[in-house]
Amino acid sequence: MAANAQIIKTQVGIVGGGPAGLLLSHLLAKSGVENIVVESRDHDTITHTHRAGILEAGSVKLLTDTGVDGRVLTEGDEHAGIDLRFNGESHPLDFRDLVDATVTLYAQNEVFVDLAAARKRDGGDVRYESEVTEVFDLETETPKFRFTDKDGATFEVHCDILVGADGSRSFCRRAVPGTQDYKTEYPFAWFGILTEAPKSAPELIYANSPHGFALISQRSETVQRMYFQCSPDEDVNQWSDDRIWTELQKRVDGPDGFQLKTGPIFDKTVLGFRSFVREPLSHGRMFLVGDAGHTVPPTGAKGLNLALADVKVLFEAIDSFYSTKDDALLQGYSDLALKRVWKAQNFSYWMTSMLHTSPNADPFSLKRALGELETVTSSRYGQQYLAESYTGWPHS
Amino acid sequence: MAANAQIIKTQVGIVGGGPAGLLLSHLLAKSGVENIVVESRDHDTITHTHRAGILEAGSVKLLTDTGVDGRVLTEGDEHAGIDLRFNGESHPLDFRDLVDATVTLYAQNEVFVDLAAARKRDGGDVRYESEVTEVFDLETETPKFRFTDKDGATFEVHCDILVGADGSRSFCRRAVPGTQDYKTEYPFAWFGILTEAPKSAPELIYANSPHGFALISQRSETVQRMYFQCSPDEDVNQWSDDRIWTELQKRVDGPDGFQLKTGPIFDKTVLGFRSFVREPLSHGRMFLVGDAGHTVPPTGAKGLNLALADVKVLFEAIDSFYSTKDDALLQGYSDLALKRVWKAQNFSYWMTSMLHTSPNADPFSLKRALGELETVTSSRYGQQYLAESYTGWPHS
Repeated sequence: MAANAQIIKTQVGIVGGGPAGLLLSHLLAKSGVENIVVESRDHDTITHTHRAGILEAGSVKLLTDTGVDGRVLTEGDEHAGIDLRFNGESHPLDFRDLVDATVTLYAQNEVFVDLAAARKRDGGDVRYESEVTEVFDLETETPKFRFTDKDGATFEVHCDILVGADGSRSFCRRAVPGTQDYKTEYPFAWFGILTEAPKSAPELIYANSPHGFALISQRSETVQRMYFQCSPDEDVNQWSDDRIWTELQKRVDGPDGFQLKTGPIFDKTVLGFRSFVREPLSHGRMFLVGDAGHTVPPTGAKGLNLALADVKVLFEAIDSFYSTKDDALLQGYSDLALKRVWKAQNFSYWMTSMLHTSPNADPFSLKRALGELETVTSSRYGQQYLAESYTGWPHS
Repeated sequence: MAANAQIIKTQVGIVGGGPAGLLLSHLLAKSGVENIVVESRDHDTITHTHRAGILEAGSVKLLTDTGVDGRVLTEGDEHAGIDLRFNGESHPLDFRDLVDATVTLYAQNEVFVDLAAARKRDGGDVRYESEVTEVFDLETETPKFRFTDKDGATFEVHCDILVGADGSRSFCRRAVPGTQDYKTEYPFAWFGILTEAPKSAPELIYANSPHGFALISQRSETVQRMYFQCSPDEDVNQWSDDRIWTELQKRVDGPDGFQLKTGPIFDKTVLGFRSFVREPLSHGRMFLVGDAGHTVPPTGAKGLNLALADVKVLFEAIDSFYSTKDDALLQGYSDLALKRVWKAQNFSYWMTSMLHTSPNADPFSLKRALGELETVTSSRYGQQYLAESYTGWPHS
């Protein structure tokens, strides 16, 4: 079979055409580095897989500065704060005032659409509906992978650098051993809904309540996205609109009489999550970026931002490799990327544990979380510490 | 037996003559409120029970402003920072620069000595070596307790307000039910030593290491206090000086070659700890302060400071009760004191979990703690958030 494969020689072979893979491809192309992207799904499937997106200012800058598209600026919704709600009371955090920064609500699938369009516009080689079946020779100077396209034709990519940007179930990652996989599971998931309703609040509300966590977020003037903590094996079919609204309202109830604005619910999904880190993020000449190397729980919205930050570090290392013939930055990619990864892992774990009520939590933990929320929100330093993490640490 | 008891009528009956009980007695006396303190131990035993003490600036002010003694200012050792050491590297936090505050190293037994002397100087009624045997009528306007003095004479105190300041094994607390006791245990303790050695560093070092936590602190130019995380059932007799120094050094080792200054060890103790909160902190006319109502692990040094903060809140409530005949502040004592208690519980738990290595911790937790230390120390906001908690939130 290998004998029949058509050989493609390029500089960088990228497995995975989500935002991470496409951004890397885009940056490399702009820098004159030849590359190919191979993605198993088709363009339309990714476009229509709705995934929330909260972009750090640094992520927005990374997209716009490099000429991907300005749509994130015109269609993205800039947010300058969040509301931490607990004990039935609102505690708004004003990011501009606290740390002079904002975030932008812009769905992950829109980021994909922009990147895919930019690659197409610039003549990038992106193969959708193509399944990678083997990665090999990773420890040589010519790592390789094979893939089969939608017509059944097989190809063998010979490159200098192979990048695994193929998501949380990464084929690339699973093809090689790491020194260590770090992970933690959570005894809860998120029940996510889309509803035709006006905004319930101007900013995202992260609510800790005795009934569990809820996140009230906005998608547009007429469509809203909300989540509430549920069991990982929750069955969405057991949840009528009425039951969902009652559950969500319970979690934001308070003496201030805050009421959610309701409407018909047209999408219901249970989102499981875990914390995961593969170390190191490289194996020979193969490098993992984004979810392929690490995943975080969604509280704190670090997943996509972390993937884009990985790409920035790896792009600079590859660019340096081609301009200097020195692979020092490539060798240092894993360590440098992991520094931010572990900060984001901690932040995501922190926000998750502080805001959710674990079904098996002891009463001390529940009260301590409220003590922590009180400490953070009653201190300007505490608010700044959280706001800086939420809006994103400076890129290295 | 009750029939033989001599009756003592006073306004406030205080059970427990540690720093909390004595400070309350002192403040009340200055405000013209009659009170008695009953303490089971003798004066010398408390004087010679060495307990570390790191006083928040607010605690120092509380002692000196109220005329207890200025010795804390002349003999206490003002510290303007700590060193968070992890991955073998030092990360100094400069409290003056960060939050314009300092702490003062002044042992808890010295605080006791000063308070006991002040009560004696001012003619306070403090009964040492007197065992409380009963508290009763707490839900009436004349709560009472009985005690037996060292000569076997029995007394019955009739008061308006009864205060339980009798430490973590509080007789007062155990005499009544709470709505809820919150607690958490830790799978480790502290091995504390006193050594005749010069200072190893100018500031306290809180070290996270793969071998466990260590705290390098100072007592004087020639005597140092150090601790290292150990098993709760550690036997001090199994630890020679050499073995202790090897263990301590391992926990601060790093590429910078930092070396502890060693000397003969003349005291070895294992200190167990837990997190505990009784809610509410009052029952009828009985009020709990300090360790009687809540204990924290020693990491972060909040125990004594929290006790003194309770006393300040309760003193103001009692003072208001006598000057206005309105018990609104007394009724609010528990809720108000608990606000600070839960912030301190969270801080103590946070410092403990971030710095110790739990014997049954998963690898993710250990790396996450390092990610948290990195986030805190690499951010001025993070440093300020920690520094503010360590040096103490403003008193309410």
